Amino acid sequence: MALYPFVEESAASPEVRAVYEDIKKTRNVDWINNFWKVIANDPAMLKRTWESLKQVMAPGALDARTKEMLYLAVSMSNSCDYCTVSHTAGARKAGMTDAMLHELIAVVGMANETNRIVNAYRVEPDAKLVEAAKGPKG
Amino acid sequence: MALYPFVEESAASPEVRAVYEDIKKTRNVDWINNFWKVIANDPAMLKRTWESLKQVMAPGALDARTKEMLYLAVSMSNSCDYCTVSHTAGARKAGMTDAMLHELIAVVGMANETNRIVNAYRVEPDAKLVEAAKGPKG
Amino acid sequence: MALYPFVEESAASPEVRAVYEDIKKTRNVDWINNFWKVIANDPAMLKRTWESLKQVMAPGALDARTKEMLYLAVSMSNSCDYCTVSHTAGARKAGMTDAMLHELIAVVGMANETNRIVNAYRVEPDAKLVEAAKGPKG
Amino acid sequence: MALYPFVEESAASPEVRAVYEDIKKTRNVDWINNFWKVIANDPAMLKRTWESLKQVMAPGALDARTKEMLYLAVSMSNSCDYCTVSHTAGARKAGMTDAMLHELIAVVGMANETNRIVNAYRVEPDAKLVEAAKGPKG
Amino acid sequence: MALYPFVEESAASPEVRAVYEDIKKTRNVDWINNFWKVIANDPAMLKRTWESLKQVMAPGALDARTKEMLYLAVSMSNSCDYCTVSHTAGARKAGMTDAMLHELIAVVGMANETNRIVNAYRVEPDAKLVEAAKGPKG
Amino acid sequence: MALYPFVEESAASPEVRAVYEDIKKTRNVDWINNFWKVIANDPAMLKRTWESLKQVMAPGALDARTKEMLYLAVSMSNSCDYCTVSHTAGARKAGMTDAMLHELIAVVGMANETNRIVNAYRVEPDAKLVEAAKGPKG
Repeated sequence: MALYPFVEESAASPEVRAVYEDIKKTRNVDWINNFWKVIANDPAMLKRTWESLKQVMAPGALDARTKEMLYLAVSMSNSCDYCTVSHTAGARKAGMTDAMLHELIAVVGMANETNRIVNAYRVEPDAKLVEAAKGPKG
Repeated sequence: MALYPFVEESAASPEVRAVYEDIKKTRNVDWINNFWKVIANDPAMLKRTWESLKQVMAPGALDARTKEMLYLAVSMSNSCDYCTVSHTAGARKAGMTDAMLHELIAVVGMANETNRIVNAYRVEPDAKLVEAAKGPKG
Repeated sequence: MALYPFVEESAASPEVRAVYEDIKKTRNVDWINNFWKVIANDPAMLKRTWESLKQVMAPGALDARTKEMLYLAVSMSNSCDYCTVSHTAGARKAGMTDAMLHELIAVVGMANETNRIVNAYRVEPDAKLVEAAKGPKG
Repeated sequence: MALYPFVEESAASPEVRAVYEDIKKTRNVDWINNFWKVIANDPAMLKRTWESLKQVMAPGALDARTKEMLYLAVSMSNSCDYCTVSHTAGARKAGMTDAMLHELIAVVGMANETNRIVNAYRVEPDAKLVEAAKGPKG
Repeated sequence: MALYPFVEESAASPEVRAVYEDIKKTRNVDWINNFWKVIANDPAMLKRTWESLKQVMAPGALDARTKEMLYLAVSMSNSCDYCTVSHTAGARKAGMTDAMLHELIAVVGMANETNRIVNAYRVEPDAKLVEAAKGPKG
Repeated sequence: MALYPFVEESAASPEVRAVYEDIKKTRNVDWINNFWKVIANDPAMLKRTWESLKQVMAPGALDARTKEMLYLAVSMSNSCDYCTVSHTAGARKAGMTDAMLHELIAVVGMANETNRIVNAYRVEPDAKLVEAAKGPKG
């Protein structure tokens, strides 16, 4: 159904294969999911997207589970089905429990509700909150 | 600029005042921000929204900081300026550092990018990922 | 701040002026709001947009107030500030009261919440609802 | 396909069953649709969402049909398929005819078009409209 | 699955048939795609939508291929599956190559990323860019 | 108003300065716009975003003007004001005329309208269009 056929590992060019190997090693998995196999039809996009994702999702000030949950919350909010599936799976692997998932979905729903209410009533940010948002460096 | 004038604490009905007091006590703050003061023009919405928010944002399987960060990520993804300000402030108060904020924004940006790419290429969820997303109860 | 200066009535071409006159007559107003004065920089867009809007918003199976409220609900849901202002004004003129506006905003908020929850949990439509949605002609 | 199995009425906890009974009684139906049966995996969400929805959708200043149509318009605008199906069915049950549905969809389409055009041209709200939007209490 | 059955050419009213004939002639095709056959259940919408689309998509300052690609980029950004399919097909027919499609998707992804980052950090437009955006007429 | 102060060129670290120099050289400009000066508070994001953008926006199968116009169309569709300003300016610099801009906005508006109509009526892609969308490689 995708616009392009899957680029399977066995048929991949050396350039694509190198990215596949890095995905498997970095994520400690032994297979490549559809997203990568479709965008591999554009090797430049495959490489650029993976390198950005690898950098963005690496544990840093935030741990891997929190990052997966943030990614999932945004994907659910955007109603992206593929990403909801892949990042629900990813967040579970990183330790998200059922209870956490339920709470995450509740937050996503609530944020979408108040995001519109605040704009519907045309509420402007409080000066105090603007200052507090800036933090110590702002 | 808002559609309705602020309902200040000093002029609030007992019903509205009770919600205001609960907000201040629950959040350990001594003032009410604009969002509540505008929606208080509809006391039923004020009460319903606060009671839902209080329940959804209470620490549970997820701690307060993680919940604030999820709320913030969705609000940024929806480009809701008021909510970006208020939940950046809220997340900072709950312990979010500059480094965490930078990483959160990077995840929000990346998720919005791949959410569209996956749909643009019409990629369908992998059966393995669908199973993994379901978790132990699914 | 707009990308183009306003095309004021006094300086409008006959083609633009004819649309302005029809707007004023149809809506029973004596002035032209900014939206039209900016898009008049593209006379073809002005004419096409006005003619479509005039047709779509004319009372039919739905009365003018209901149509204005539907337009407003969508504009609030999309966080379009200009359209929130103009259609709140328009709906008020068509008879929307404060109580109606509060209820409308509550529906907009709630719909945005459940729209995401249903996709987050990947709920599929019930066969019975699909049939009921089709109606007598379906 | 949903992330969680349906919580059928026969297997529901007393807490979940109480909500199901209230849904059936309030809506005068004899079955529970998928949305509720999936979110019942999180009984707190089931209860909170139903109680909010029941309050928001109860006839008040706006009648039930108008509320269903507003909910439907937002759901269509957000391209939420489940909600489009369930609220098309709900609005029909409340009296929406084919002619009304056609006009509703026309408004949803038109609003989405002008919402973007107005922002594309960076048009700012007219002072007169801002005042008119505020109404008698503003 | 659609809310209404297809209005096939053989069963169409003269009014609907006239639009179908114009679509086939204008696009140089010998069949009518599902979008038109479903919205033909509302002949006024069919006629209005086609006439607007015909005007908007006619080659002018921009050629047909560029217009199809712009339409496609927006449709992908909105995750509209039907429109992604129909305008990928349309753009290919107008000369879009695989290489162009890959680059288009990359732009769509990147724009969605930076659109959120800029709002997340609350960056305001540079005065110099505002002037430059206005162009010679502004 | 931004969450962080601008990182001016004169105060930038060598790492940030190197990116700034590359932006100026690549775009043939002598100043840095606000977007970069704010995200420079996170040097890793500055570098990653610039390198991706530089790669994505470089002329290839599509020329620079077409790429800027696609970026602009998506930004307008997302109602991102900063990006609308910066990419209207960018597209003008790359040769977009007023007539082209008008046509671009018309396409953005129309696409947003039909994107919702097609989902509102639940129209499914035609098998013929799915095939045509795949192109020679699909």
